[in-house]
Amino acid sequence: MLTGVLEAAVYADDLEEARRFYGQVLGLTEIAARRGRHVFFRCGGSVVLVFCAEATRTPPPPGAALPVPPHGATGAGHLCLAVAEADMAALVTRLQKAGVAIEADFCWPNGVRSVYVRDPAGNSVEFAAPRLWGLDR
Amino acid sequence: MLTGVLEAAVYADDLEEARRFYGQVLGLTEIAARRGRHVFFRCGGSVVLVFCAEATRTPPPPGAALPVPPHGATGAGHLCLAVAEADMAALVTRLQKAGVAIEADFCWPNGVRSVYVRDPAGNSVEFAAPRLWGLDR
Repeated sequence: MLTGVLEAAVYADDLEEARRFYGQVLGLTEIAARRGRHVFFRCGGSVVLVFCAEATRTPPPPGAALPVPPHGATGAGHLCLAVAEADMAALVTRLQKAGVAIEADFCWPNGVRSVYVRDPAGNSVEFAAPRLWGLDR
Repeated sequence: MLTGVLEAAVYADDLEEARRFYGQVLGLTEIAARRGRHVFFRCGGSVVLVFCAEATRTPPPPGAALPVPPHGATGAGHLCLAVAEADMAALVTRLQKAGVAIEADFCWPNGVRSVYVRDPAGNSVEFAAPRLWGLDR
């Protein structure tokens, strides 16, 4: 009945830094933003949500038309974005040109390569092909 | 170059509770687990990772073959799983039969319905159709 991850969330205090990283460095398309609260990006058939936890921990006021439940985490989260194996080398070049340090770069026992960096807030962002999990996309 | 969210992560201290919720209640297929560290589930073309933050905050030992970078967040995270609009009513019935409280249930200005519950660790889990973001899947 559930067909995929529609939204994955990470938290960042500085949303402008997040915008530069996810938007300009990674090249995701920004689809929504509210200053001081969030900036959202489309990534293929999914959405990457970057929230300022201090803002999203506030519960909606009673009777709100859109009573979005509060949430908000502290510390390094994790996210993995899909990249075709044929595009991995170009992605790594892009990250390096942007000055993003590669924290880890190795192949899993099934031969699929994972590359890990940190977003400006310290979240662990991985890049890997869907074949890592036997998934074709 | 990036084609989607391959993995989204949430954190839970009690992985058995997480297994019951994501596996039995939501019906996701468990694809990997390590006692005390993680349990992973396939959800369509993506993977939902549930980590015990206390375990994943430990950096890999020097020279590890698989130097997975540490991460681990505290507090309520957020995740949205995709469900076809035609299946939403059946999903809500399934949640209610399992005793899962519906925390919020409303339609966004574009008419797409979102239903929110909490996983046993307190993470905010939303269910919505990809049309929420203009995405067809």
